[in-house]
Amino acid sequence: MATHKLLLLAGDGIGPEVMAEVKRVAQWLEQAGLASFALEEDLVGGCAYDAHGAAISEDAMARAKAADAVLLGAVGGPKWDGVPYEVRPEAGLLRLRKDLQLFANLRPAICYPALADASSLKRDVVEGLDILIVRELTGGVYFGEPKTIIDLGNGQKRAIDTQVYDTYEIERIASVAFELARTRRNKVTSSEKHNVMRSGVLWKEVVTALHDRAYKDVELEHNLADSLAMQLVRRPKQFDVIVTDNLFGDILSDIAAMLTGSLGMLPSASLGAVDPATGKRAALYEPVHGSAPDIAGKGIANPIAMIGSLAMALRYSFNQGDVADRIEQAIAGVLASGKRTGDIASPGTETVGTQEMGKAIVAEL
Amino acid sequence: MATHKLLLLAGDGIGPEVMAEVKRVAQWLEQAGLASFALEEDLVGGCAYDAHGAAISEDAMARAKAADAVLLGAVGGPKWDGVPYEVRPEAGLLRLRKDLQLFANLRPAICYPALADASSLKRDVVEGLDILIVRELTGGVYFGEPKTIIDLGNGQKRAIDTQVYDTYEIERIASVAFELARTRRNKVTSSEKHNVMRSGVLWKEVVTALHDRAYKDVELEHNLADSLAMQLVRRPKQFDVIVTDNLFGDILSDIAAMLTGSLGMLPSASLGAVDPATGKRAALYEPVHGSAPDIAGKGIANPIAMIGSLAMALRYSFNQGDVADRIEQAIAGVLASGKRTGDIASPGTETVGTQEMGKAIVAEL
Ligand SMILES: CC(C)[C@H](C(=O)O)[C@@H](O)C(=O)O
Ligand SMILES: CC(C)[C@H](C(=O)O)[C@@H](O)C(=O)O
Repeated sequence: MATHKLLLLAGDGIGPEVMAEVKRVAQWLEQAGLASFALEEDLVGGCAYDAHGAAISEDAMARAKAADAVLLGAVGGPKWDGVPYEVRPEAGLLRLRKDLQLFANLRPAICYPALADASSLKRDVVEGLDILIVRELTGGVYFGEPKTIIDLGNGQKRAIDTQVYDTYEIERIASVAFELARTRRNKVTSSEKHNVMRSGVLWKEVVTALHDRAYKDVELEHNLADSLAMQLVRRPKQFDVIVTDNLFGDILSDIAAMLTGSLGMLPSASLGAVDPATGKRAALYEPVHGSAPDIAGKGIANPIAMIGSLAMALRYSFNQGDVADRIEQAIAGVLASGKRTGDIASPGTETVGTQEMGKAIVAEL
Repeated sequence: MATHKLLLLAGDGIGPEVMAEVKRVAQWLEQAGLASFALEEDLVGGCAYDAHGAAISEDAMARAKAADAVLLGAVGGPKWDGVPYEVRPEAGLLRLRKDLQLFANLRPAICYPALADASSLKRDVVEGLDILIVRELTGGVYFGEPKTIIDLGNGQKRAIDTQVYDTYEIERIASVAFELARTRRNKVTSSEKHNVMRSGVLWKEVVTALHDRAYKDVELEHNLADSLAMQLVRRPKQFDVIVTDNLFGDILSDIAAMLTGSLGMLPSASLGAVDPATGKRAALYEPVHGSAPDIAGKGIANPIAMIGSLAMALRYSFNQGDVADRIEQAIAGVLASGKRTGDIASPGTETVGTQEMGKAIVAEL
């Protein structure tokens, strides 16, 4: 059995707590002879800044590059509000994305039937929801230059960020979306603001041309980002795969996740291109939720999204879809038994802490 | 009684239908001796392009500058998908905003109790919701330069948009937000992405400094745009006034509006600075909803947001708050009587068309 080199970057806030439950599951998988891991651990985010003065050390970057996959908890928190821009916690995550060239961020928004009542939306609006947001992750306003603040004198400053997209960047993310749509309900919704942004004009043009050239069998629709945000709230089940840029993807995927009432349940994958020489692709898996500083250290965070990220790694990076299925079934089993962390609790369920949830999933396995 | 110079720009899609009902109400107000208007009409958007080859003519711009206030219906539609970028329908609206320097866009999101069931959210999540989004409207990525598409050769193009904010632009919109908060529940939530954007860093810095200098009595909180989008879906009633930039404001205000189930009910105001010489300020009022090409010409669009825009003009531009109240009470009365256009219909209500709704409001007046 192949040994998977897995780097765990627990990060800040609830990151370490939920990552501990991943280790519990990984250990069980090894003992059961279902998978073999070479686990490494390192720092990212505010804790890395505290230790090294940088949001990720060169050493951790080297380990990330050498790993078969990276699991990341979460970064950031009010503790680091005052640190310099270049070394803020998020810089560690952004560097991982950029240097590993993880251009494709897959964020599923799934409404678990057992959790539909935890949504702020009406049950019939979200029950059965299954959307996949495909977000471009290494371009756009996150990385474009110039990105600076200029002192104009007289108490005035000017801040500049630059949204840049090249044809090839749009093409490669759109092709990921079309390919994934073929394995799902065969529909892609592309979103931008072509009515006010030049990058939106190019985005729409490139996606349309690629569709007409290579993916005519997939249904393609275009929806402006503001209108899509509305439609997500109004009638989310009309969507299958949504493809969009880095910034719109940030917002739209969070909305989609929140609709489901299952934010603490949702893992995500950030993938690079397949290396034609080795057949390998760089990959980072992380929960959709953030570092939740308000509940950090209390032992009440939901570890399911983090454990689901391990399942995603097994499926997409390690070709062990059967083991991934098994983890997901164990999660479903624990939910069916009525156990819930606080974020997904509802009347009649039993509220448990982070560790109990992890243990229950291992027991179910 | 002062005569108000009001320019009506009905625009595209359902614009003309809903604007016709404004004329009906204005006529009644004149006959009743409650207000006096010098109404002018002109084109904006796709219809202006069809007539003049530009999304707004110089003549219409001159009229807009001379008017006491502008009422705008909506612009755009698939008919003009292929027109050159510079003359697309939205360019007319953007030029009005920019040339009249309408930097402050006020977008209330109110959930009318009678309509709470029309929301896709649970009644208890949205009932009584009353948020005011204060969106910066003449800066940011909408207008920043460079804004272009470059041909790189080899089939590759590069699209560039630029987000630019100066200190004074952030200060003036934040001060509008703080002032309005004082007339409401005294809380401002400022939103940006300071964790990835330099404009977000400056935004947060300037808003905080202004608060500490001049608005310490108002509660201020900062919420990242992605997190705010989530919170709007999760627990929207925690917000009072939200202040944000042009692009985030576009998306967040649409989400907020959609939560209420009352999108067809919501007017908005875009205001310039008060001219110290004349005491006047440029102003444009328009519904939050768009041109809805799918239902245009069918006589089923909801005219209430458009009629509400006239009420807003009376209140904010013409100092006739009493007449504005009267219009809003008439709208409430018609809703209480059970009459609804299709977008806000629910079991047990009577569905009426655009004209019937306009007539019912006049009758109630
Ligand atoms: C932490 C932050 C930099 C990040 C982003 O904006 O991309 C987060 O919100 C996300 O969506 O992964
Ligand atoms: C029509 C369009 C240019 C406009 C915008 O993006 O500002 C609209 O969506 C709005 O919110 O008023």
